Amino acid sequence: MAAVRYELLKVCKQSGARLGRLHTPHGVIDTPAFMPVGTQATVKTMSPEELKQMDAHIILSNTYHLFLRPGHDIVREAGGLHRFMNWDRPILTDSGGFQVFSLSELRKITEEGVAFRNHLNGDKLFISPEIAMEIQNALGSDIMMAFDECPPYPAEYDYVKKSMERTTRWAERCLKAHARPNDQALFAIVQGGMHADLRRESAAQLTSMDFPGYAIGGLSVGESKPLMYEMLECTVPLLPDRKPRYLMGVGSPDALLEGSIRGVDMFDCVLPTRIARNGTVMTSQGRLVVRGAKLARDFGPLDPNCGCYTCTNYSRAYLRHLLKADETFGIRLTTYHNLHFLLDLMRNVRQAIAEDRLLDFRDEFFNRYGMHDNDRGF
Amino acid sequence: MAAVRYELLKVCKQSGARLGRLHTPHGVIDTPAFMPVGTQATVKTMSPEELKQMDAHIILSNTYHLFLRPGHDIVREAGGLHRFMNWDRPILTDSGGFQVFSLSELRKITEEGVAFRNHLNGDKLFISPEIAMEIQNALGSDIMMAFDECPPYPAEYDYVKKSMERTTRWAERCLKAHARPNDQALFAIVQGGMHADLRRESAAQLTSMDFPGYAIGGLSVGESKPLMYEMLECTVPLLPDRKPRYLMGVGSPDALLEGSIRGVDMFDCVLPTRIARNGTVMTSQGRLVVRGAKLARDFGPLDPNCGCYTCTNYSRAYLRHLLKADETFGIRLTTYHNLHFLLDLMRNVRQAIAEDRLLDFRDEFFNRYGMHDNDRGF
Repeated sequence: MAAVRYELLKVCKQSGARLGRLHTPHGVIDTPAFMPVGTQATVKTMSPEELKQMDAHIILSNTYHLFLRPGHDIVREAGGLHRFMNWDRPILTDSGGFQVFSLSELRKITEEGVAFRNHLNGDKLFISPEIAMEIQNALGSDIMMAFDECPPYPAEYDYVKKSMERTTRWAERCLKAHARPNDQALFAIVQGGMHADLRRESAAQLTSMDFPGYAIGGLSVGESKPLMYEMLECTVPLLPDRKPRYLMGVGSPDALLEGSIRGVDMFDCVLPTRIARNGTVMTSQGRLVVRGAKLARDFGPLDPNCGCYTCTNYSRAYLRHLLKADETFGIRLTTYHNLHFLLDLMRNVRQAIAEDRLLDFRDEFFNRYGMHDNDRGF
Repeated sequence: MAAVRYELLKVCKQSGARLGRLHTPHGVIDTPAFMPVGTQATVKTMSPEELKQMDAHIILSNTYHLFLRPGHDIVREAGGLHRFMNWDRPILTDSGGFQVFSLSELRKITEEGVAFRNHLNGDKLFISPEIAMEIQNALGSDIMMAFDECPPYPAEYDYVKKSMERTTRWAERCLKAHARPNDQALFAIVQGGMHADLRRESAAQLTSMDFPGYAIGGLSVGESKPLMYEMLECTVPLLPDRKPRYLMGVGSPDALLEGSIRGVDMFDCVLPTRIARNGTVMTSQGRLVVRGAKLARDFGPLDPNCGCYTCTNYSRAYLRHLLKADETFGIRLTTYHNLHFLLDLMRNVRQAIAEDRLLDFRDEFFNRYGMHDNDRGF
């Protein structure tokens, strides 16, 4: 019995987007879904109850960070990540690959795996596909990711090709090393950089191995949005209809819409939580910098069209005061709002798919939100 | 009609402590009560709902800080402090006096008031008794404090005497300047340093003016605990039975107990929130440093005898991880626990008074908590 099961409810007649449900050991995820990121076994500043209040169905946590601190052995002894962090809904853990390449120092990649130095204390460490599985099996996430290499952008065609082929071989080793396939689903990650033929090759190789789900990795790494969408368009059609598709590291409103339209079911990104900590919020009228002086006497909510806890109870003037005074309750409230905003957007996306009008909804959304959001990239 | 009314329910036959209720425009406070401190219009890291969940009846906010940022005019325009910070229960604001003397720079005291520089930006500012009333009237707190001078410790007898006499004159000016006596109660502050005769003189002068409540200021400023209790013992008997008594800046468990035994009704202190942010918690067995290495694999709660949100849902190992990883959710959870601990202690104090056994309760508490807590001072 597979750990997860994807149920396709319908395809939007206007856009081709998919409405579905992903059944996991810790509950059902309505898709398309946005996953808040809880890097270090906590979605920064939020309680599990708050995440449930805003109806987050699943969160993501980072294997690399938990491997370094507190260590996956401690999480296993605690009874797994769900119990450790008091979150009883689904969890997806990434493979650690992306962080090994973006955060660690002195990394050396061989066929066996990646040697690197812990960015916190300089210790020499090593992660192989087998070790990535051991760590994620210890964490006990509902969805695990195969250990991959995410090539930099831009990169030479030959390098990306070799890297993609190694990622395929590593995925095969992950499949063999995974100790709990009935309890945890292992997704493979399609790579291939910005090269359509490599993307297609990667997708073909990985789907032949029959993973319970597929991610599209190596996007949102500095390329333009049109190029990202082009890569989606050549990759997604090669993925099996009956399996979930996850676009990694994407969370700007425009990319969530365009990704859904291109058949993606799952997304994650630190964007909403990170910009919240810098005092920027997403609203139905576009982004708002809460520290701005003109908000000092603005006693209205962050977003007049939002019904979240923050907008129901607090004014822009109060939030500005908290942020200016370095009060952490301020970033709690902006974080809450931004996560609610994206989860609400995905609820609306699902509703629009159900009504066969996702292209109309996208256009209406952009008319309000503005076309100049700096994450749109064009 | 006075803004607040103190109702004496009973006196503990064993200890002399008072059980009472303070009726205010925003609700009833069971006394003896501990007031969490929300310096900048927020109890650091906590939401109003969390404070209610732990059954805080009243919070304190700091006039000096709100005067500097965001400015009392903005709070007034927001509809007052209650609405600004979304807290509909009672609020006490201090006078700003203590902070002017402890935080500001280049202060100059005259009979008229205190000139000083804003510690945030160096601006020249001035607070007089009249201005302190104007600010607190704008904030709209249920209980306001008269503008006082809190002399340093140790200080010359003559200086303390002159300062105490000026504090009395300032209290009289506050009484005259207070614009909303039916909506906000003004408490006077007994000063007099560590000199019993000056304390008695201050109490006599202030009680002759018939304030709706009296605070004991200028204690917990570096003196020993026995000396503090001696000052309480010579001051409290001079205060009227039918008015509430508030010991300012005191919040260690031992001082809350000893203060209650000496007839105090209200307390406030940043201790529980401040040490929580440093990763120290109060438990029924004494203080615990949560960052300690031996907690890494300790999957029990902070305090096995505690039923708070933190202790119900999270382990010492998880809390240690969050604190080591600089995750603000960690200090949310330790802050919640520490505030709950003191509010729970005060519930137990009230229960013990009702049962005429507060001295027994104190001894039982100290037997568990230990006599060596570093806030005991002896």
